[in-house]
Parts: sequence; C-alpha cells; structure tokens
Amino acid sequence: MAPLRSFVEVLPESHFPLENLPYGVFRPSAGGSQAEPRPGVAIGDYVLDLSAVAAAGLFDGPLLKKSSCFSQTSLNKFLEMGRPAWKEARSTLQKLLSADEPTLRDNADLKEKCLFPMDKVQMLVPMVIGDYTDFFSSMHHAKNCGTIFRGPENPIAQNWFHLPIAYHGRASSVVISGTDITRPRGQAYPTPNSPPYFGPSMKMDFELEMAAIVGPGNELGHPIDVNDAADHIFGLVLMNDWSARDIQAWEYVPLGPFLGKSFGTSISPWIVTLDALEPFACDAPRQEPHPLPYLAETKHVNYDIPLEVWIKPSGHEHPSLVTKSNFSHLYWTINQQLAHHTINGCNLRPGDLLGTGTISGPHEESFGCLLELTWNGQKPLSIGGSSRKFLEDGDEVIFTAACKGNGYNVGFGTCTGKVLPSTP
Amino acid sequence: MAPLRSFVEVLPESHFPLENLPYGVFRPSAGGSQAEPRPGVAIGDYVLDLSAVAAAGLFDGPLLKKSSCFSQTSLNKFLEMGRPAWKEARSTLQKLLSADEPTLRDNADLKEKCLFPMDKVQMLVPMVIGDYTDFFSSMHHAKNCGTIFRGPENPIAQNWFHLPIAYHGRASSVVISGTDITRPRGQAYPTPNSPPYFGPSMKMDFELEMAAIVGPGNELGHPIDVNDAADHIFGLVLMNDWSARDIQAWEYVPLGPFLGKSFGTSISPWIVTLDALEPFACDAPRQEPHPLPYLAETKHVNYDIPLEVWIKPSGHEHPSLVTKSNFSHLYWTINQQLAHHTINGCNLRPGDLLGTGTISGPHEESFGCLLELTWNGQKPLSIGGSSRKFLEDGDEVIFTAACKGNGYNVGFGTCTGKVLPSTP
Repeated sequence: MAPLRSFVEVLPESHFPLENLPYGVFRPSAGGSQAEPRPGVAIGDYVLDLSAVAAAGLFDGPLLKKSSCFSQTSLNKFLEMGRPAWKEARSTLQKLLSADEPTLRDNADLKEKCLFPMDKVQMLVPMVIGDYTDFFSSMHHAKNCGTIFRGPENPIAQNWFHLPIAYHGRASSVVISGTDITRPRGQAYPTPNSPPYFGPSMKMDFELEMAAIVGPGNELGHPIDVNDAADHIFGLVLMNDWSARDIQAWEYVPLGPFLGKSFGTSISPWIVTLDALEPFACDAPRQEPHPLPYLAETKHVNYDIPLEVWIKPSGHEHPSLVTKSNFSHLYWTINQQLAHHTINGCNLRPGDLLGTGTISGPHEESFGCLLELTWNGQKPLSIGGSSRKFLEDGDEVIFTAACKGNGYNVGFGTCTGKVLPSTP
Repeated sequence: MAPLRSFVEVLPESHFPLENLPYGVFRPSAGGSQAEPRPGVAIGDYVLDLSAVAAAGLFDGPLLKKSSCFSQTSLNKFLEMGRPAWKEARSTLQKLLSADEPTLRDNADLKEKCLFPMDKVQMLVPMVIGDYTDFFSSMHHAKNCGTIFRGPENPIAQNWFHLPIAYHGRASSVVISGTDITRPRGQAYPTPNSPPYFGPSMKMDFELEMAAIVGPGNELGHPIDVNDAADHIFGLVLMNDWSARDIQAWEYVPLGPFLGKSFGTSISPWIVTLDALEPFACDAPRQEPHPLPYLAETKHVNYDIPLEVWIKPSGHEHPSLVTKSNFSHLYWTINQQLAHHTINGCNLRPGDLLGTGTISGPHEESFGCLLELTWNGQKPLSIGGSSRKFLEDGDEVIFTAACKGNGYNVGFGTCTGKVLPSTP
C-alpha cells in the first residue's frame, strides 16, 4: 500500500506522517504559561489543535460529535472513552488531513487556528497520571543485573519466569521530555567500618524503557482478562527511568527501589496509538514454562520498534550513539503486564502509566542502560572520545524510536533530558 | 486546663470534642450519590459542613475570608495553604462551636444548614491522593518479619538503622473505611517440582498503620529540611494496609511488594491535625547509630496514640480485641520520613499519603498484624472462640485510636473493612 498523503508537508524521514497521528497535549508558545493546555496530534512538523478542530465541529462521528474530550487540558477523558472513540478520531483526522480533502486544506482562517508549527508550541505531560507502575520484563536486562549483583549462577530469580515482576513507581516526578534532571543526593553503601556515603549520586544512569498509557480502567476487585487487555491500552511512549544505582543498591532490600528512581522519569510527548503500531506487530518470545492460564494470550505479540539511545556530553557538538535495542525483546507483553496488574483486583484508571522496564537486547550493543553497557563501571564506554562509567553533569541523554513502514515511519520523536549538578 | 465546652453535645467518651476538630469530606446521605462532596469537621456525633460555614461568611480571618478552599470536593486546596491557614481555621471553628458563642448556637436556620448527624452522612476519601508511600518504620515489626522469613540471626538488614526504608504504594486502591475488601487472587510460592499456586490468597492479613497527609509540597529537585518537615504535614489517619502474605512472599524479590498490597488500603475518614495532637507529643526512641545530618532533628518526637485492633468474625455478635499498640513505637518519626522522601529531590504534593508501616510494640500483645501475632500461622489466635491463622471471609477488621487528655479524648474514630470472598 502506498503511503498516505497529507496536504501538510511530511518529509520522508518524518516520524509523524498520516499513518501515525500520535496524541499529545501542548500550549502555544505565544501565549506563555497563560495559554490553556489542549490536546493535539502531530502531523509532519506541525501540531493539529484538537480543541480547535472540535470547536469547528469537524468531529462529526457519533461518539465524538457531542463529547467535550478535546476541550480538556489532558487526554484523560478521551482515554476513558476507549477504542471505538479512538478509531473514530483516527478515521476523522486521517480524512481531514488528507491531500484530497478540502475542508481544512482550503480554509486559510481555520488552518491558522488549527495548525501550529512544532517549534512554536510547548509540549506537556499529556495525561494526569494516577499511578505509575514499572515492570521488569526484559529477560536480558534481568539476567545482566542478576549477574552483576549476584553472580552468574542463577542470575534470574525463580519467580521471574512465572509472572511479570513490577513495582509501584512515583507518579509526581514523571516529567515531559526536555526537562532537566537534577543529580540526586542520597545515601549509598558504607564501606566496612564506615557510615554510609552521603552526597550526590556517583552512579547516575538512564534506563531505556517504553511505557503503555492506560485507556478505560477497571473497578476495584474486577480483574481484566488478558485477551481484553489491549482494549485498555491507548498507546506507547518512550520513557527514561533515570536511576541512581548507588542509592538504589543500598536502599532496595527488602522493599525495592525508592529514592534511586523517584527523582525524575522522562516521557516523550507523543503517544503513538496501538492502532498506528498494528502494522508492526510481531511474535513475542516463546515462553517456557508456559504461563499460567490468566497470563496465556491467544495472540502473543510485541511490536517491532527499533530503539536508540544517544548521549551528547557537555561541549560536544553532536550526540553519539550509545545503544540500539528493540521493543520486541520484551519477554512479557504489555497485555500480560496489564492482566497481571489487575489479577488481584487492583484498579487501573485512565492515564495510568505502565513502564516496560529497561529493554535490553541479547548483545552488548543492545543493552539498555549504562549499568549493563559498562558492566557496573568496570568497562568504561567511549562517547565521542569521552569516557563514561555513568552519567556526568551536563550529559544530555536522547532516546528515539521509529518503526519502518513501506515508505513511511511511525515514529516516537525523542525523549531527552540533561543532567544538572546536584544542588548543595 | 478544663476541657473546652461546645453547644453541640459531646459525650465524655466521644473522640471528637472541641479539642480535636478533625477534617473529612462527606456527602449528606439524603442527597444520594448526586449530593456534592464537601469538607467537614467532626464535633461530637455531628459533622459541621465547612462549605456552609464558608458560604455564611463565618470564616472571617485574613487567609480564609476570600478563599474557596471549603467549596471544593476535596481538602487538597486547604492542605496546600499550610499551617497558618490551618491554625486560622482551627481558631475560627473552636470559637464558632464553643458554648459561649451565639452566632451559630442561636441561629436555628443556619444550624440546620451546617450541622449533620454523623449517621446521616456518607464519608469519602478526603483528598485526591497523588502518590501513596509506605514506610517500614517500626523496629519491632522489622525484627519480627526478618526473624520469621530469614531467621533470628541478623533479622534486620544493615540499611534499616540508617534510613527510613519505604516503597511506593498504589494510590488507586486506597479506599475509605467501611469499604468491603475482596480477597485477592494471585500466585504464591510453588512447592518443589510444582508450578506456583494460583487462586484466592490463603494468607490475607491486616496491617495496623497510621498515615500522614501531606500539606504544602515541594518542587522537584528541592528537598525539605527535616526541621521544616512538620509544616508539610497536615495530620494523621488510621490505615489498614491489607496484605496477602503468600502473594507478597512469592513476588517481592527483587523489586518489593506489589500485588500483595494493591488490592485495597483502608483509611479512616477523619484527619486529626498535628495541632490537635500537640498535647500528646512524646519523646521518640533514641536512635543508635546517630542519624546522618539530613535526618537529625532538633525535636525528635512521636505522639502517644494508643492503637487497638478488633476483629468481628462473621456471625459473632461482638468484635474481639486482637492487639494494642501505640504510634509512639515508631523508630523513624514522620518528619524524618518526609525529609528522607525528598532528599533526592522527589516532589511531594498536597494530599500525598505517607504510611508509617505496621506499628508493632515490643510484646506479643502489641504486634501489628496476624503474620506476627500468629507467627506466620504457626500459633493460631483465638478470636472470641474462633481460631485464626489469617483472615477468613466475613471477618470485619476494626482499628480504633484515641489519645487520652485530661477529661477529653482526641480520637480517630474507626477504620473498618470486611473481607469478601474472592470473585471466581
């Protein structure tokens, strides 16, 4: 099938053609912080203002016609409406933006109201995140961490192959791509006969993750079936779950990571829908032992999403490629994650964020964090001539991802953040 | 000092005299689920409707006069205003409700608008909880759990005495006292050569906790000093952090508790302010080793809050006392917890919930959960003639607490919940 054509210019390498149409929330830069946040979709180098499209009466399908979901400051109301509304919006917007459709194309006034150049808007966290959960679903990552911390015999705990291990994360410190991240202070392991270290983290790291955004939730006490899980997931974003390895190592027994993670988690601004990702579905890894019935899916798929991490040290002109991985390496799928999350009756809400955990591939060039890439600092990495065990102040970390279609990309843009020095 | 006197009848054993004035959010039962939730304070067997008091122009202090904080459906806006506003409200309300003050006492119309019998209202979770964190701050609880799971040598991990261990909890499943709790299903430890158990939890437990409600928050990257922490805490509630010990034991390595906790957490409806608790301040346990400077408080205090747990099995006419503990057993104070939580720059928001962890005392009769009381089911407990290793379907668990003043109580009412059978 030939790529779809829009009247808005979409360059061949763009992440945001008509096949994608990812959702975000933005405010026009011109209005400053006074301008009301509003939902938008990305098209080429532009953002289409959905509040303006709705105000012009252009959502004419049965579900969206009378809905106020696009006159909100977050996507939560739209998320709650579920897949039928999402499909209706996608179909309306693909038509409205297509090269052959005059409604918006030939209306200069309306175009000026609806289309903003991407460099003239400020992107915001697109949803109110009630809860953020982080999984641990890449086998290669689990194996590497276990080997580093506990040795090569039984690096992966027995439970890992039976359930998608996860922990509750911190919702308040989830920030939008581009937000600077201050190096955290905290305690770290004491050396023998000394008190614990206290000061700026000396092992600050990125974690290459993606995260699912929950659509319709469930009532407390009512689990979601694994084969219905996809109807509760709106789409995916890139996520950098910044980590302080020294703080984490000292604090995490017995209740898990806490301050080693909660100083910042960056997400990319554009939520790429599962509908846009559908052409990139691929078989997920075979699971042995076979999962328990509540985790056994009739359709066990991942998506083929190539992931890259680049780092631009302070003073460097260009970023350097650090690793390449792929979403398809996930052992536990996002549907299994969601079903497991609710099997005890736990209630999900629209806008909840489900991180995949660090996505590492099988080879050294595909590991998803510096802990693995430098083997806990033992094998420093060269980044454009600079040596790195862990992140240094001024380092900018850039994640990017794009699925390669036939003549088009379905991309995620970037998820970036720069490390600032610890405050005294 | 003689007890304060209100024109509203307050029986001697009441938890809610003029010295207390705890805050909640309620809707009048008469309006059904259509009635708008609104803030209130408890006085004797009545609830004073703060939206009505505000509408009548009776908050006449400089901070509250023009504020809309009491015309909200949650307390978050009031929480954000901080201690000066809280003190102003307390002073206004103590005067308004006092026996000598005619304004409300002698205005029958206004009284009817403002005062609701407690049995004619429905209490709600009083704040929007952005994040819920659970600490692990009772030494006796940590020691008992360590002994049960890892044996009597070194039951407490090395880090415990250096920092208030905590983990992120699940905010969505925090429910108001009185909500039934459905027994969760989930995976539990396999026996040798068998797959993991899957089914209703066989080790459902309560956890006797209290929780602090955060007032003004902090910006990401900006820690709160331990000696300023109290200004960021509005008050305390009782909390039952329901736990499924078998699910928890199997899932918690290496990232901590997840589904063993997230099926329900009950809180009592009335937030007792730190101002009301001030007369009950008492020395907190001496800390050895001395805490690092960021955790060293000039005023290291707890509150003397006697805590009780009662259980009423299905079919029993009366509940039976199961344990008696005290908030004063906490090794790490709530101020140390809050300072530690933010030392890495993590941002707190008004309405955040900080659980203390299970509060156990030093003796068997003061342990804070069945895991400890029955020593993981090895020593069943007699509850009014019924034997219990863990909770059974139909058991109603009732927490209560009251500080004993000179002729009055500052009480928390109750935090209750009944165990429903697992759904198939």
